[in-house]
Amino acid sequence: MKILKDEDLCPAAVMRGAIDALEAAFRAKAAGKLVSPPRHHVSFPDRGDIVFTVGGIDGERPLAGFRAYETFDGHQHSQVVAVWRADTAELQGIILGERLGQIRTGAIGGVAIRLLSAAAARTVGIIGSGAQARTQLIAAAAVRDISSVHVFSRNPRNCVAFAEEMQLELGIAVEPVTSAAKAVANADIVLCATNSDRPVIDASDVKAGVHINTIGPKTLKGHELGLDVANMASIIATDSLEQTRAYASPFFLSGTMHEERMLDLATIVAGHTAGRTSLLDTTLFCSVGLAGTEVIVASAIFDTI
Amino acid sequence: MKILKDEDLCPAAVMRGAIDALEAAFRAKAAGKLVSPPRHHVSFPDRGDIVFTVGGIDGERPLAGFRAYETFDGHQHSQVVAVWRADTAELQGIILGERLGQIRTGAIGGVAIRLLSAAAARTVGIIGSGAQARTQLIAAAAVRDISSVHVFSRNPRNCVAFAEEMQLELGIAVEPVTSAAKAVANADIVLCATNSDRPVIDASDVKAGVHINTIGPKTLKGHELGLDVANMASIIATDSLEQTRAYASPFFLSGTMHEERMLDLATIVAGHTAGRTSLLDTTLFCSVGLAGTEVIVASAIFDTI
Repeated sequence: MKILKDEDLCPAAVMRGAIDALEAAFRAKAAGKLVSPPRHHVSFPDRGDIVFTVGGIDGERPLAGFRAYETFDGHQHSQVVAVWRADTAELQGIILGERLGQIRTGAIGGVAIRLLSAAAARTVGIIGSGAQARTQLIAAAAVRDISSVHVFSRNPRNCVAFAEEMQLELGIAVEPVTSAAKAVANADIVLCATNSDRPVIDASDVKAGVHINTIGPKTLKGHELGLDVANMASIIATDSLEQTRAYASPFFLSGTMHEERMLDLATIVAGHTAGRTSLLDTTLFCSVGLAGTEVIVASAIFDTI
Repeated sequence: MKILKDEDLCPAAVMRGAIDALEAAFRAKAAGKLVSPPRHHVSFPDRGDIVFTVGGIDGERPLAGFRAYETFDGHQHSQVVAVWRADTAELQGIILGERLGQIRTGAIGGVAIRLLSAAAARTVGIIGSGAQARTQLIAAAAVRDISSVHVFSRNPRNCVAFAEEMQLELGIAVEPVTSAAKAVANADIVLCATNSDRPVIDASDVKAGVHINTIGPKTLKGHELGLDVANMASIIATDSLEQTRAYASPFFLSGTMHEERMLDLATIVAGHTAGRTSLLDTTLFCSVGLAGTEVIVASAIFDTI
């Protein structure tokens, strides 16, 4: 039984295994073998909630577990993820902290990049320089042979630090640039991982054939990408259609013609619907964080660490 | 942040603090400041459930946390308990394994013994020699000046081992005896912690003024004590009236005249109802395991370890 904390988790080391495990989980989802019930909240009056997401996968090596986090007032928050083997009742382990969630979101982005970006994609443009931007880039580098990265962040110091650290970590040229448009101009893959409530790029900034992951806000109230990007996309996919319908403020594509054509990533992974069909297809992946997938990633990490 | 496993928990060392913490929790319960919502189950088809019990306490030093356990097929099971400070969001720690639950049940028994047994109680009779019998005896010794213990168990070898180990652990004379009636004949405090579906003692076996804790089965289908014992009791209390009404097979006192007079231990702790009023009162405590109390005990352990 393993107990891991943030300092035990190196995103670059575990990302490939996490992406493979999540791809298998999406295939299981398409086959109805993923257990991913709605979140469960318990309220503590005047304090906040404890929230539970439960997840599991049935099959040869069935897994079951949960993530628990709280919404109390405080600076430091620590999630708890636990995973059991559902066939033997063995507790595989516990992961505490914030990093597993970032690795999970990165790995979901990695599945989308693997499925939807051009096989020959070499260049990445990133908007954002936080933890999510890091794991998205690590995921892109895990599934595509990336040779060049341009990053833009509103805060120039963070932007430069991100470029230096990621260049060192991935051994890929990572260059800070002075505008979002410059970051994405030549990119085969665009990663948006901001907190912006307003679109950070225009459709005219990107080249045809690009694949875009959006990680940041995507409700009607605030969204880091606009309808113009959705309009140019041949394919729009998400990791959970259910969750796009469950936002407190509606999803940014609600009530548009895109709502009906949005695809579940699981159906593409399973081959039930086609992904990219041409080098000129523009593809858009809206990452919402399919509940229960932390359990899958945690299990993959326990198998390798 | 602390992470503890079974081998880190010495019941005798932590019992007094656990009883004090639970007594405070019962006082909070009487004041409406204990958060103890119903259990929440998530099913994994053909495998079993993950079950969550959430608990917390409001006040000067608010706590919130949960216990999670599974019902999968397997020999070894490991519960997960996590506790946060609800005012700072600090994760106090995690406890893994089976022992915390036994300490918790022991400590609830200890609160009952403190509140209901005669202040001068010196002798204990125990039926049963398992983990629950051990923590009940440790709890009794934590709140009363016990000088002599008699134990009976159907398995003579377990009975002797229990006596030897507990005598060593508590520094009290613990004697194995050859019948349940002999174990309880002179006892001021009787602890029933068996798996028996049929009554293990008769009311005529115990002396007037005894306090009895029943930990084992107590449904109509199977119960380690019979109605005769309830009939002789001046006071019948339980840690959760709600849970006595929620058993799949009804509680063994359902439909009897005792159902209406059964007291919530919390109201006695808070002084809202009287406990023992005479040396000749026979008192009966039906331990059902108030949900959420593992969190309280875990927090008390983190405060001292």
